[in-house]
Amino acid sequence: MEARVNRQILLVEKPAGRLGPEHFRLTEAAPPAPKDGEVLLRVRYISLDAANRAWMQGATYRAAVEAGTVMAGGALAEVVESRGEGFAPGDLVFADTGWQDYAALPARELIKLPKITPLTHLLSVYGIAGLTAYFGLLHVGRPKAGETVVVSAAAGSVGSLVGQIGKIKGCRVVGIAGGREKCDWLTAELGFDAAVDYKAGPVFKALKSAAPQGIDVYFDNVGGDILEACLAQMNVRGRIACCGAISQYDGAPSGTGPRGVPGLLVIRRLVMQGFVVMDYFKARDQALGDLQSWVAAGKLKVQEDVIEGLENTPRALIGLLAGENRGKRMVRVG
Amino acid sequence: MEARVNRQILLVEKPAGRLGPEHFRLTEAAPPAPKDGEVLLRVRYISLDAANRAWMQGATYRAAVEAGTVMAGGALAEVVESRGEGFAPGDLVFADTGWQDYAALPARELIKLPKITPLTHLLSVYGIAGLTAYFGLLHVGRPKAGETVVVSAAAGSVGSLVGQIGKIKGCRVVGIAGGREKCDWLTAELGFDAAVDYKAGPVFKALKSAAPQGIDVYFDNVGGDILEACLAQMNVRGRIACCGAISQYDGAPSGTGPRGVPGLLVIRRLVMQGFVVMDYFKARDQALGDLQSWVAAGKLKVQEDVIEGLENTPRALIGLLAGENRGKRMVRVG
Repeated sequence: MEARVNRQILLVEKPAGRLGPEHFRLTEAAPPAPKDGEVLLRVRYISLDAANRAWMQGATYRAAVEAGTVMAGGALAEVVESRGEGFAPGDLVFADTGWQDYAALPARELIKLPKITPLTHLLSVYGIAGLTAYFGLLHVGRPKAGETVVVSAAAGSVGSLVGQIGKIKGCRVVGIAGGREKCDWLTAELGFDAAVDYKAGPVFKALKSAAPQGIDVYFDNVGGDILEACLAQMNVRGRIACCGAISQYDGAPSGTGPRGVPGLLVIRRLVMQGFVVMDYFKARDQALGDLQSWVAAGKLKVQEDVIEGLENTPRALIGLLAGENRGKRMVRVG
Repeated sequence: MEARVNRQILLVEKPAGRLGPEHFRLTEAAPPAPKDGEVLLRVRYISLDAANRAWMQGATYRAAVEAGTVMAGGALAEVVESRGEGFAPGDLVFADTGWQDYAALPARELIKLPKITPLTHLLSVYGIAGLTAYFGLLHVGRPKAGETVVVSAAAGSVGSLVGQIGKIKGCRVVGIAGGREKCDWLTAELGFDAAVDYKAGPVFKALKSAAPQGIDVYFDNVGGDILEACLAQMNVRGRIACCGAISQYDGAPSGTGPRGVPGLLVIRRLVMQGFVVMDYFKARDQALGDLQSWVAAGKLKVQEDVIEGLENTPRALIGLLAGENRGKRMVRVG
């Protein structure tokens, strides 16, 4: 067996304010040796997600990441050596490998994946992003044909799929994104009915013209002011699917929440529901079946943003938090 | 027919800040003559509700009340003369008569009520308050035996019933109320497991010891800081039934909402749901049946706070907003 080096990116310290390159450090170690029940993995593509930043703020649906350790993160990886049941070299898996070339993990923590082309779709439309869009919109938001669906971070990995699934279900779809270019892409390429550029002026007013019938389902990826603007325009019995709060992750969390909670919830009988995609995994096969058929039929366009090289993972995340990506961002490692 | 006078309480102007007696004026007019299809009603008991104040802020689930008109409000009333189908003199009804001795209303806007003893129960446990507690807790909050239910404005008309229904369903119940006396009443008389006096110090800490296992269902009558304190202590998959926001009604509405929205909703997969009791009226018979059997079995104690005289209605509402009532407040008119 050739001599191998395991490059690792450590979280040096947890950021108090905005995340920067200084919070990470690249180091090298020998690849780990799998113990009994474990599997040695070669990381192929690391998934970048706004949640990576949220993990630095404290415990979420998982334990907080700690300073001085390899930065946590989900990845598409290939089995190199297996001492765990059910896995053989060459198998593809999704796992929380962290930001490194190799990881040894218990077999029970791995999700086996099929070999499809392109592989990257396993991290985008058939990965957490696709399932989050699917379950969040259809199971939490529950849009009916003819209703108006609004989604924020609409050019991102989840948002770009939410809007397209909304169109497949016969809804009027409005995306909120940063910049003219992204907005044009949403309407011209992805079939959104309208897009609101939150960098171009107050969202409330632009949204009012983009969604003149009010909002029936708001898929919230951002929280903060945009959530507040949407809340005020919700129709009676509207549903807000709370997926994330990217506006709140990179800095000190806000000391207040959106105006209108709980007053508007009562008056308009709204439901606001937070969800975590893992809770819906029992219905995963159905979801993947639908997503695959929509991709095959050309109804669902998949946008990916692949950055090359493990060493670029920190800046890939920093850029994602600044909104520079379009579609699913990932880092190709090996 | 004897000469009759219709005393009326007008809303002189909508309050910009706190509601005071100066916002109302007592006047007299001739009783209205019912038109074809209408019914002339003699008001017996006027229901006082925090929502009365919310109606002054703007449209809610009903149109806003307007300055210069008779103050709106639901009441238990008796049919004096009927030109509408299905009603005869002597019938009891619930209707939005407004604050006055007599009202003429279309028959279709009246809800016929049975003649029970005491009549006042038709406005408390078998009225809007009881149904709100029942549907809000059981259909929106959906508590399971063994779970922890927290209710705010717990000594009020709705809250006092919510807590007792929670106990009937096998939950641990914590009430939040203002003052030692109310809190003692909740635990000593109504069977609450614990009570938190929000006037005695920060709610967060006191709630932490009163609900050491966290909160599974929070029935929110108040909004504001207390909602924020509860939100932070919700368990995974907890449910918040948003019934009202009494802390926000009497003055300028808050410019912000509770911290933790939407962040905590996502992390803990919470549902916050606003509701209006009328939406559940199709299941009214079932609810009334349950409430009656619980009252008959002595499991549900009904507390009423009856003020005498139409002229005292303004101060009855002002006092309710200040939290001076225990149980259902109403005004006996005639």
